[in-house]
Amino acid sequence: MADGGTGAEFSSLNPMMAPRSVAVIGASDEPTRIGGRPLSYMIARGFAGPVWPVNPKRDRVQGLPAFPDVASLPGVPDAAIVAVPGALAEAAVDALGRRGCPAAIVFTAGFAEVDEAGRAAQERLVSIARGHGMRLLGPNCLGLFNAPLGYFPIFTSSFENGWPAEPLAGRGRVGIASQSGAYGTHLFGAARARGIATPVLVTTGNEAEVTLGDVIGWMAEDEGIEVIAAYSEGVREGPRFLQALEAARRAGKPVVMMKVGRSPLGAHAAQSHTASIAGDDAVTGVVLEEFGVHRARNTEELLDVAYAATPRIYPVANTLGVVSISGGAGVMISDVAEEQGLAMPPMPEAAQARLRGLIPFSNPANPVDCTAQVFNDMSLVGAFARGMVEDGGYTSLIAFFTQVGASPSLAPKLRAELNRVREDHPDRLWVLSVLAPPERVREYEADGYLVFEDPSRAVVALAAQGRFGAAFARPARAAVPLPEVTLPDTAPDEAGAKRLLEAAGVPAVPEVATEGVEAAVEAARGIGFPVVMKLLSPDILHKSEVGGVLLGVADEAAVRAGYERLMANAAVNAPGARITGILVARQVGGAVEVALGIARDPVFGPVAMVGLGGVFIEILRDVALRRCPVDVAEAEAMIRSLRGFPLLDGARGRPRADVAALARALSSLSAFAAAAGERLVSVDVNPMLVLPEGQGAWAADAVIELG
Amino acid sequence: MADGGTGAEFSSLNPMMAPRSVAVIGASDEPTRIGGRPLSYMIARGFAGPVWPVNPKRDRVQGLPAFPDVASLPGVPDAAIVAVPGALAEAAVDALGRRGCPAAIVFTAGFAEVDEAGRAAQERLVSIARGHGMRLLGPNCLGLFNAPLGYFPIFTSSFENGWPAEPLAGRGRVGIASQSGAYGTHLFGAARARGIATPVLVTTGNEAEVTLGDVIGWMAEDEGIEVIAAYSEGVREGPRFLQALEAARRAGKPVVMMKVGRSPLGAHAAQSHTASIAGDDAVTGVVLEEFGVHRARNTEELLDVAYAATPRIYPVANTLGVVSISGGAGVMISDVAEEQGLAMPPMPEAAQARLRGLIPFSNPANPVDCTAQVFNDMSLVGAFARGMVEDGGYTSLIAFFTQVGASPSLAPKLRAELNRVREDHPDRLWVLSVLAPPERVREYEADGYLVFEDPSRAVVALAAQGRFGAAFARPARAAVPLPEVTLPDTAPDEAGAKRLLEAAGVPAVPEVATEGVEAAVEAARGIGFPVVMKLLSPDILHKSEVGGVLLGVADEAAVRAGYERLMANAAVNAPGARITGILVARQVGGAVEVALGIARDPVFGPVAMVGLGGVFIEILRDVALRRCPVDVAEAEAMIRSLRGFPLLDGARGRPRADVAALARALSSLSAFAAAAGERLVSVDVNPMLVLPEGQGAWAADAVIELG
Repeated sequence: MADGGTGAEFSSLNPMMAPRSVAVIGASDEPTRIGGRPLSYMIARGFAGPVWPVNPKRDRVQGLPAFPDVASLPGVPDAAIVAVPGALAEAAVDALGRRGCPAAIVFTAGFAEVDEAGRAAQERLVSIARGHGMRLLGPNCLGLFNAPLGYFPIFTSSFENGWPAEPLAGRGRVGIASQSGAYGTHLFGAARARGIATPVLVTTGNEAEVTLGDVIGWMAEDEGIEVIAAYSEGVREGPRFLQALEAARRAGKPVVMMKVGRSPLGAHAAQSHTASIAGDDAVTGVVLEEFGVHRARNTEELLDVAYAATPRIYPVANTLGVVSISGGAGVMISDVAEEQGLAMPPMPEAAQARLRGLIPFSNPANPVDCTAQVFNDMSLVGAFARGMVEDGGYTSLIAFFTQVGASPSLAPKLRAELNRVREDHPDRLWVLSVLAPPERVREYEADGYLVFEDPSRAVVALAAQGRFGAAFARPARAAVPLPEVTLPDTAPDEAGAKRLLEAAGVPAVPEVATEGVEAAVEAARGIGFPVVMKLLSPDILHKSEVGGVLLGVADEAAVRAGYERLMANAAVNAPGARITGILVARQVGGAVEVALGIARDPVFGPVAMVGLGGVFIEILRDVALRRCPVDVAEAEAMIRSLRGFPLLDGARGRPRADVAALARALSSLSAFAAAAGERLVSVDVNPMLVLPEGQGAWAADAVIELG
Repeated sequence: MADGGTGAEFSSLNPMMAPRSVAVIGASDEPTRIGGRPLSYMIARGFAGPVWPVNPKRDRVQGLPAFPDVASLPGVPDAAIVAVPGALAEAAVDALGRRGCPAAIVFTAGFAEVDEAGRAAQERLVSIARGHGMRLLGPNCLGLFNAPLGYFPIFTSSFENGWPAEPLAGRGRVGIASQSGAYGTHLFGAARARGIATPVLVTTGNEAEVTLGDVIGWMAEDEGIEVIAAYSEGVREGPRFLQALEAARRAGKPVVMMKVGRSPLGAHAAQSHTASIAGDDAVTGVVLEEFGVHRARNTEELLDVAYAATPRIYPVANTLGVVSISGGAGVMISDVAEEQGLAMPPMPEAAQARLRGLIPFSNPANPVDCTAQVFNDMSLVGAFARGMVEDGGYTSLIAFFTQVGASPSLAPKLRAELNRVREDHPDRLWVLSVLAPPERVREYEADGYLVFEDPSRAVVALAAQGRFGAAFARPARAAVPLPEVTLPDTAPDEAGAKRLLEAAGVPAVPEVATEGVEAAVEAARGIGFPVVMKLLSPDILHKSEVGGVLLGVADEAAVRAGYERLMANAAVNAPGARITGILVARQVGGAVEVALGIARDPVFGPVAMVGLGGVFIEILRDVALRRCPVDVAEAEAMIRSLRGFPLLDGARGRPRADVAALARALSSLSAFAAAAGERLVSVDVNPMLVLPEGQGAWAADAVIELG
């Protein structure tokens, strides 16, 4: 039952999601009007508690006694629908708050989605609600439903085509959390057409107060929801969203999410559509990955993955076995499995030999082609399928039988054979890939199969279940210890930046900040030749562009000449800049150049970045991102995910680089950013020189921007 | 009518595809047996000509007069089905050939797909057929059908679930050409379930004689087929396949193809399944691209693209306009359009202003969100759609109306509004993205819409139509003039390889092959210092590995020292090698290093390759391939398709490289390979040094392998 859940972190939404009584402000007697639909739906679906229409012009609305205003209500409603025109919404919310109503669902439009005046009105609305300790959905939202309670505070027309489907065989309760009303109901309609039960749908509209994170979190805690399907054009509030994803992960509930705006064109369209400052799409992407959320590429994939999640089988080490009557289909499935990273290990040799004894020309490795022989003897299908489960040990199985699944002469035998094996092994994910009419599909689903016409879609959905399993099995992200960080009042120069980072655990190339030519010579002598010399100035961010860097300075005379040259270059190319000295550093050879960085995402805060230098970042945009802080293991995983990683791993005859040291530095940098607070705008460590294994990784340059 | 086509290059298949009379060798009275199904289908579907069962044991078979053997047939059949057990097939084909039968469809299995003896038997079968000038389908094939003729020489059971669909509104005739019988009928069944007409299906089985190319070519020439859907696990015969794809392109018929085995795992599965020597998957991929074939990633995409091709509208410059009631859906569509390279230009400013006058809060740029306002006034949908077609000029349109498309109250108005616009502009590709039951979908299709529930699938299918249009509009590949090539008897050394390539139009770095130290000094003086010195030896392929290359040789003394060093290195590291001299070459600076190459594909012959040096090839496998020869424009397109192309185009502060010269060299190399014949195994030009614009591109090393 979707009746409120256990309510720990997200229970403040309980009155809105599962109220005992409901008021409808702006109730209409006409059941197809915005203020009429919720009433007519709740009457039709038998909401158990009282429903109080508020309408100053009528005594009764849709047969229920009506009240002229909020003050006259016979009790305090747990939830209230606000369906009055723009100017009246504020007063309605205030009146509800005064009565102590804890939840308002505001359909009214004309707020932040329209113009600046609307934005100001929306801020007033929220501040009124917050003043009363009231949760507020919308404004400009389509509403929500919690079907098992008969609770339908929503004005969609989509029930013209049917009510939400009942869970098949008691399983498969998918909750839909959607920013967009149109898309949320599209998803609901598409799910209904496939027989997928969606007992709860919430559309969040402008998200002035209740955000997607609140809704996902409530679903994570609600016993009636097993799988969460979400849609967003841009996450508005970071911390609550993160808390919700972790709650879902902890509860072992898969979240499947469509986040649109992944392309520049799409992001532009999203921005002009929502007028919201959405966080960077790539950052949202890595946050979803961090919590094991499946980011769907389209609606079909979203529903496929949610549907395949309904048996609630999430293998931690997922393997796929395929039994087929078409060799070609087996090849096609292998192609997709490889792309999806879903392992298809071969059957053990002995088991192969045994099966080959049953059908001489079969190829029982995996995919297992049991050939057209089975048309003569369907018991062979059972023998092959049993062999795959019991000898191959696969956690996921696809049986590809195309039109045989609908053949009046063959299908009953096929079903009986497979059922015997499946009933002995109900802990596997069983997919039947058949071409069959909907009524036949429902029968197979009732048996316990997932049914996919297209086997490649099945592979994508099965691979996702294994990733869910792995995410659920991971321990919660351990707290990364944060350093003490005291930022200076203004942006530090290069030497100052490196000292700050060194204190936080990011090593720098041995170097000395000097003043005057003699100090530079002495420093170079101490470090050992050759050295690098650089201008120090808080006013020059890109030193090489003003001739402020000299490499391979070979001896004392060269240091003296270099000093003069740097000063002359500064005078010519950066005349106004304050020169605080000359940095003399060891010239490091034989290192791989990497760039580390920190940027601040408006939604998710500081984000750590790593990429290989040169063409990898500049031309290929080959970087890994992660929310700060990351521990050393996560940092290493980021580094290993780079396409250019082989360069650090001994490719092209190089020695292996000190990846462990680089990972430590990246983790330390991320912890520094997490501790530094909002004044830290960005950090750019480029190049970070990664020496051969065991020799460390050193920052050769660093820029810190402060706000 | 699928009755034989105009029959130019592929007419030898006419008797098999559209016979006037059919014999069934091994005919069975039992209509569900392999030898019985074709008879029962042809009787049920009223094949117009005589059908002659051959069965030595019965006078009548399924009600038709039977004949004891081929010799007793009352006439020469245009086509014959061979459905006798393995050992008897050879005699049956021979007997048919002796009577002058021009076409045999051989169901019999147990040939090359089984073992070496089977392969030998198959070769005998083909040689008998060829001796009689007979075309032979199979062996080990499921057969074919040509439904408009009632011609069903096939033993599939899939007609248990229905006959092929009739073309809707007279359009949409998709021919299926499939190597695999199981997959071909799966495709047919999936098409039937979607109401897509497939009048012709051919499965080619072992392809001992008739190959996929023959079938695609016949369909390209046949008037009854408008779109060709093909399936292959590996193309067996290159030239016929190429000829067929060009015939289809010339006829303006889209080919949509599933070629499985694109991943290493899949390719392994394909090989163990078909035991055929398939060409490299990547090479097949570029061949398909060359002819504008859409390579589908899965069955659904294959059917989506074929379905969207049935209106036979192939815009040469395709643009997409989207009108939607969900801003979110518009964003999602923009994401996919960008990935697919389908342009979504904005509406002209004036048109936007006009539409904004109709719905104040709408956003009529593109995607055009006409907001929930339209529920109150559906004529706004018409106005918006008309604005998009007439002012925006889009060739493809998606109207996203989700459940509204099935709403009893709203759908009829929506349909009427859109129809008025569509009827005025029937030359556009109109997609309706709605959630509706099949009967409603059929109505929209009869109106002239393509109907897709998921708009992202629609975008993929629409983008494909534009690529078809572009491919059809391209002139046929012009003949590239081939050079005279005389290969030496054994593989040449580096200098010899470069001279061969230079003669073919691939310039080399200025260099002189010398013998003795004085000649080397003189050559260096002529070329100008610094120079590069290399060992010349036909026995050493990788000179740098034996210390056989010296860079930056600065003066005469260094040439003398270098000579001694190279000789010493050769004596130590390659003691057996014949040293033919020393190559002295100009040391070229400031160039971008590129690799050019030729490899021989077993199916498609020599293939040209280009990639950027360094990490691009070694780590990122960033290369472009094309069948030889390529003209200069194609060569330049290959170069521009590289991910690393920005490096040649002025990235990172470099001058632009001489891409035109590189393209000429690549084209010349490809022409050399095309002219050189089968003895040429491979060519490796690495590095090819590309100088700044206008300064040329020079081969700095070259290796030619001969067979």
